[in-house]
Amino acid sequence: MQMQMQLQRHTFALRNVNQIQRAPLSSPQVVTMKAQMREIHSLLKWVDDVKEGGMRKKKLVYNHEDWLKHRSSTRHIRHFMSSLSSRVILSLIPPVCIFTGIAALVGAYNTVVGEYGFLSLPLIHANSLPYQLTAPALALLLVFRTEASYARYEEGRKAWTRVIGLVTDFARQANTGIRHPDDTHLKHQLLDYIMAFPFALKCHIIYGSDIRCDLERFLPENDISVVLSSQHPPNCIIQFMSECLRQLHLNDHERHSFDSHLSQFNDSIAVCQSLIETPIPLSYTRLTSRFLVLWHLTLPIILWDQCEWIVVPATFISAASLFCIEEGNGSDPEIN
Amino acid sequence: MQMQMQLQRHTFALRNVNQIQRAPLSSPQVVTMKAQMREIHSLLKWVDDVKEGGMRKKKLVYNHEDWLKHRSSTRHIRHFMSSLSSRVILSLIPPVCIFTGIAALVGAYNTVVGEYGFLSLPLIHANSLPYQLTAPALALLLVFRTEASYARYEEGRKAWTRVIGLVTDFARQANTGIRHPDDTHLKHQLLDYIMAFPFALKCHIIYGSDIRCDLERFLPENDISVVLSSQHPPNCIIQFMSECLRQLHLNDHERHSFDSHLSQFNDSIAVCQSLIETPIPLSYTRLTSRFLVLWHLTLPIILWDQCEWIVVPATFISAASLFCIEEGNGSDPEIN
Amino acid sequence: MQMQMQLQRHTFALRNVNQIQRAPLSSPQVVTMKAQMREIHSLLKWVDDVKEGGMRKKKLVYNHEDWLKHRSSTRHIRHFMSSLSSRVILSLIPPVCIFTGIAALVGAYNTVVGEYGFLSLPLIHANSLPYQLTAPALALLLVFRTEASYARYEEGRKAWTRVIGLVTDFARQANTGIRHPDDTHLKHQLLDYIMAFPFALKCHIIYGSDIRCDLERFLPENDISVVLSSQHPPNCIIQFMSECLRQLHLNDHERHSFDSHLSQFNDSIAVCQSLIETPIPLSYTRLTSRFLVLWHLTLPIILWDQCEWIVVPATFISAASLFCIEEGNGSDPEIN
Amino acid sequence: MQMQMQLQRHTFALRNVNQIQRAPLSSPQVVTMKAQMREIHSLLKWVDDVKEGGMRKKKLVYNHEDWLKHRSSTRHIRHFMSSLSSRVILSLIPPVCIFTGIAALVGAYNTVVGEYGFLSLPLIHANSLPYQLTAPALALLLVFRTEASYARYEEGRKAWTRVIGLVTDFARQANTGIRHPDDTHLKHQLLDYIMAFPFALKCHIIYGSDIRCDLERFLPENDISVVLSSQHPPNCIIQFMSECLRQLHLNDHERHSFDSHLSQFNDSIAVCQSLIETPIPLSYTRLTSRFLVLWHLTLPIILWDQCEWIVVPATFISAASLFCIEEGNGSDPEIN
Amino acid sequence: MQMQMQLQRHTFALRNVNQIQRAPLSSPQVVTMKAQMREIHSLLKWVDDVKEGGMRKKKLVYNHEDWLKHRSSTRHIRHFMSSLSSRVILSLIPPVCIFTGIAALVGAYNTVVGEYGFLSLPLIHANSLPYQLTAPALALLLVFRTEASYARYEEGRKAWTRVIGLVTDFARQANTGIRHPDDTHLKHQLLDYIMAFPFALKCHIIYGSDIRCDLERFLPENDISVVLSSQHPPNCIIQFMSECLRQLHLNDHERHSFDSHLSQFNDSIAVCQSLIETPIPLSYTRLTSRFLVLWHLTLPIILWDQCEWIVVPATFISAASLFCIEEGNGSDPEIN
Repeated sequence: MQMQMQLQRHTFALRNVNQIQRAPLSSPQVVTMKAQMREIHSLLKWVDDVKEGGMRKKKLVYNHEDWLKHRSSTRHIRHFMSSLSSRVILSLIPPVCIFTGIAALVGAYNTVVGEYGFLSLPLIHANSLPYQLTAPALALLLVFRTEASYARYEEGRKAWTRVIGLVTDFARQANTGIRHPDDTHLKHQLLDYIMAFPFALKCHIIYGSDIRCDLERFLPENDISVVLSSQHPPNCIIQFMSECLRQLHLNDHERHSFDSHLSQFNDSIAVCQSLIETPIPLSYTRLTSRFLVLWHLTLPIILWDQCEWIVVPATFISAASLFCIEEGNGSDPEIN
Repeated sequence: MQMQMQLQRHTFALRNVNQIQRAPLSSPQVVTMKAQMREIHSLLKWVDDVKEGGMRKKKLVYNHEDWLKHRSSTRHIRHFMSSLSSRVILSLIPPVCIFTGIAALVGAYNTVVGEYGFLSLPLIHANSLPYQLTAPALALLLVFRTEASYARYEEGRKAWTRVIGLVTDFARQANTGIRHPDDTHLKHQLLDYIMAFPFALKCHIIYGSDIRCDLERFLPENDISVVLSSQHPPNCIIQFMSECLRQLHLNDHERHSFDSHLSQFNDSIAVCQSLIETPIPLSYTRLTSRFLVLWHLTLPIILWDQCEWIVVPATFISAASLFCIEEGNGSDPEIN
Repeated sequence: MQMQMQLQRHTFALRNVNQIQRAPLSSPQVVTMKAQMREIHSLLKWVDDVKEGGMRKKKLVYNHEDWLKHRSSTRHIRHFMSSLSSRVILSLIPPVCIFTGIAALVGAYNTVVGEYGFLSLPLIHANSLPYQLTAPALALLLVFRTEASYARYEEGRKAWTRVIGLVTDFARQANTGIRHPDDTHLKHQLLDYIMAFPFALKCHIIYGSDIRCDLERFLPENDISVVLSSQHPPNCIIQFMSECLRQLHLNDHERHSFDSHLSQFNDSIAVCQSLIETPIPLSYTRLTSRFLVLWHLTLPIILWDQCEWIVVPATFISAASLFCIEEGNGSDPEIN
Repeated sequence: MQMQMQLQRHTFALRNVNQIQRAPLSSPQVVTMKAQMREIHSLLKWVDDVKEGGMRKKKLVYNHEDWLKHRSSTRHIRHFMSSLSSRVILSLIPPVCIFTGIAALVGAYNTVVGEYGFLSLPLIHANSLPYQLTAPALALLLVFRTEASYARYEEGRKAWTRVIGLVTDFARQANTGIRHPDDTHLKHQLLDYIMAFPFALKCHIIYGSDIRCDLERFLPENDISVVLSSQHPPNCIIQFMSECLRQLHLNDHERHSFDSHLSQFNDSIAVCQSLIETPIPLSYTRLTSRFLVLWHLTLPIILWDQCEWIVVPATFISAASLFCIEEGNGSDPEIN
Repeated sequence: MQMQMQLQRHTFALRNVNQIQRAPLSSPQVVTMKAQMREIHSLLKWVDDVKEGGMRKKKLVYNHEDWLKHRSSTRHIRHFMSSLSSRVILSLIPPVCIFTGIAALVGAYNTVVGEYGFLSLPLIHANSLPYQLTAPALALLLVFRTEASYARYEEGRKAWTRVIGLVTDFARQANTGIRHPDDTHLKHQLLDYIMAFPFALKCHIIYGSDIRCDLERFLPENDISVVLSSQHPPNCIIQFMSECLRQLHLNDHERHSFDSHLSQFNDSIAVCQSLIETPIPLSYTRLTSRFLVLWHLTLPIILWDQCEWIVVPATFISAASLFCIEEGNGSDPEIN
């Protein structure tokens, strides 16, 4: 009977963990669009806001129905149709518009100069051979960036998987292992701390999270105020757990085993924090960005001889595709 | 004598583990084709059903004969012949047909306009240079997706390998280590739970599995009803094992060693669940999908100048190949 | 003095381990060429037999002289000269011949039609642009397959390295740690089991191995018969060792340390078996194979305009190269 | 109450660790530009100084505001604008200028010879086909170098993450675990050593660090003088900690757990030192460098036929891009 | 005071470890150039000797000055200038000369036939399209080889890093942990064995090392003779340490902790030995080599139409570059 209850409590804890991930996280994001800012700036800001808002919403947990939809034959139509409302695509509007505009300017200039011999100015055009020789390098650079971002995402995913596994296991061990009659209260306190830990870590990592709201479910008010006043909430909860363990009646083996869980929590914090604090080396990021800008600035010149006015859609598509690959990588820090 | 019996029991457990993997898993999949649905939808659904059905059947265990066949010189003929019945190929019918159709339309339009000068409309054609410059990026993107999917498949395979290894080792340790005369019944119960664990995990991960049928071989009816009513069957079985361990007469070292197996089971659950719940970031998946669709929509325009009516088979082959690479990656979640 | 003896025994064990790897493994492979089978089938079978025979012979241990030869300046000449006797090359004869034949047919047809205007049939030719756009995707796909195969090979190599390390370390610990006077016989028995383990694992993994012959050096007859009658010889030997450990007079720390070696043996079995039982997902393998076949079937058509009769050697070289890359990957399962 | 204090002390330690990373590290770098050195040498030296100075400044810790800026839509403009002040770009001036100059010379020679038939000298030009065939190899080689450098960077980042995690965990364990009344002084001493360890490791790895200044916050003067006179400061601090542990009143489990932290500190030192002491094999580095130089020396000859005077900007852009990829990899050793 | 001494001894040990790596290892390599051997063979042998000699010299430990030089702006000039004296380049002379010679022959034949219509023989030329289609596959294959070699190099580097870390940590633990008054002599003996271990491992792995000279610094004469007469010196030293541990007065925890170091030494031996004994699968190596030879044999034929006599430098540069990439990978076994 008691085991059944423990089990329910335990699966309840697990369900909770899933629920927070599934929760919409709809903290109202106050968009302060000051009227005196210029139009272009407000557009850029709007684009960034849409992007940042989207990043906070997309953390869903997949279930079997999602996978069926994910693999369905109609997904290509769905993805193509949703292009215009896509967060990533929207954030591409500024650079793509600029480069398409430049391509249109080059096209207009060349048309005027070419047809009317206006002021005997030269055409702006060049041979495409240098581009053909460096195109693989650009593609590889973009894919390297993509792989590096994905590796960081995977590192974060694995760290989070580890936290979930540790929490479940620690809760199980505490449930089964703490049996001294004087420890009942401490045990429930410890279980509450264990459940609060992933929430505290999540809120510490994701910007603008409401940590008080998440912790109220598990911790009493005075604990929450200690946590909130500390500089590092997850570390503070580890400290609470450490204190609990010190007071429990455990033998050496159990104490060692319990304590090793705290060390592993600590490791997970270090991994998550390291991902947040150190981006991909800026020299790589900037190099790719500069290479892309230079490439697209000169692309209409290269293409004019062979494509004429098709330079405009060609530049549009090329900029949309390649900046999209580059953009897809910006989202790595907010991993969990 | 007793050791021999233990051994037999043990290898029997192992054989069972293999058998379930080898079992056809032919749970009848009720295909509810409602008559009032449009034809195209029913086709798409049929394609998806074939695909999903195929995914459940293909999990085979290779033996030496399979490897000989796998490496034989005639495999290329065999693979090419089986193209038409292949699950992956069938699921490609919708996009490939659509793009081939578009290519045929473009061809027809250009032929009519080009030969009869109909209404002096312009030909739809463009220079191929922009495609030559971005082709490596598309290829690399597809291969990146393939590698990411394969890495997930490998992670799942290794987690499952780990589970099998842990089950075998735990069974061995329980067989050898539990020697207290009062523990005979508990020991057999624990061995049953150990054997039931991979089945419960498999059924939890694979959609539409009949968990009751799998567990009946190992667990008594009241245990099964507890497992089925819990929200997380593998976790529930770990809880059962944890309870068993608590009641056994073990010294500290043994208890610690046994308990660490439960922790590792827990880790394996977390890894499997993380793979199921978090797909490859959707931004990558959608980017590849959109890039592919855009590329193939405009491919007939690009190729018209040089290939004329060969655009139709060319688009067909290109769409079949590249969507096939993209498709091959959709199957990663159902890993075990 | 005794230590010296232990050392000799120990290094003898190590040398033995090396010797089996170095042994030619020349088990006569009965090639049953039934006379009533067609010629082509017997050729294919011969090709496969040569390949399979070669796979069993090539597992050598490199020493310093081999490395000097491996790095020597003349290696390119040596490799090129040995092409005709190479196992991999021989297995390529069927597909390469077929595609070269098809290229010759296309060439003959086009020559006849083109020169004599025979029946005003059209030439079979097409523009090469679609091939130029998809060539990088094919190359990347082949290299992805190569990398996946190599990763499996490395996983197997590391698992085997681990087994060798564990065997050496376990033998050392058993030698030094078992000191109770009653345990002398059991200790020697345990050492024999430890030495027999890698042989049993090797024979379990490599098809057609003579396990009795390998084990006779270490185990008494009745043990061998138990091992041979069991369904899983390496597991059976682990069971023997487990039984030995149970009977030895060890303290808790020693028992735990010894037992963890058995767990690691178990892990190694699971890794090896997982590699054998699950090939690279068939969808990848088949996709590459179909892509290659389709590519080479249409290659002569694509090349005709620019190469005319050179399509025949061009198809030959392309098929030889690309099928060779694809073939090189088939050999991964028999890793140790 | 005491716990609250411990916590504060602990988070203070953590904040300190962050602060040193955030600190500007502005140790004055004495640039000894001797007047008698030639101009070109002083330019090269200036370039190197700028680069080395920049490497020391860029180690920042990212926070949420930085990430918002990092992902903003205007980043491409920001990066492009900052090109001229970029450390990496500046270091490219010498090779890029030289190759652009050579291209200009080739252009001038060809113009003179081509237009005036001067002395009937031949034009310096060649067909571009060999370049088109080897361009992918060059791109892949550069990306391989990039990936190898990035892997080293990641290894360093993970080692440092590990050190931070270990320090926090060790401090927590020491705080909670050392409770014997006689150990209060030793405990504070141990905590000081623990906090001093990452500083000592950082200073040992980063060239020109002021180790005395960093350690004065934690260690008394006589300890510092011992550390400074030792050949390996981080090892010396581990030795101090080892001595502390020996004198503390701990039970076996605690001593073992504490000691394992020292072993892991040791491992981290070995990893960091190995990264510093062994660069990427010089054969790879030199091969890439030579390939790049040879490629750009002959690039204007290859491009002349099709690009004429555009060889000059083409060589400039190609050299800037490819040397930039190559340069971005030089910075790997000073990882932390 | 004693601690200070221990520390000095300890850092002395560390310094020694570094010194051997820094030592020139200039064992005179007797080059037996027999007079009756043909010229070409002696050239090849000289090339191989230079290469092998170079391999033994290049293992340097980098310090901060080396890194400054490594990153300096003049490194490209330095690398390009040193091409002619480079070990790798020298070893390329035979294949590059042969292929350049063949290119010159093809050029001469085509010139004679083309200009004088000699005997109405056909020109040797072909269209380059098949080469353009397979060039990416060749490049990817070379880079795959490079990555596989580099992964082996990294595995070796990490194993060696591990050995150094283990040695330092074991020495520290032995220094602090062995405190029984009767153990003073054994402790010094154990420390000597610990320091001798990396030397024995190094000599076991690197061909032609003088193991006696290295061990004399640490071991007494009778120990050395036992080690030298054993078949596996590092294993023999582990056996010595194992014997030491058996005789020391340690509690269970300490004994277990010390013994686990021996197990890890053992693992490192297994990793190093596995790298030496199993090269990259020969099928990959040979495939790359054959592909390269075939490619360069036919390259002049392909290039003739477009490049004429420029085939000679083009073949030279292509062969130099691609064989250089292939050659750079031969050096992986002698990793430490």
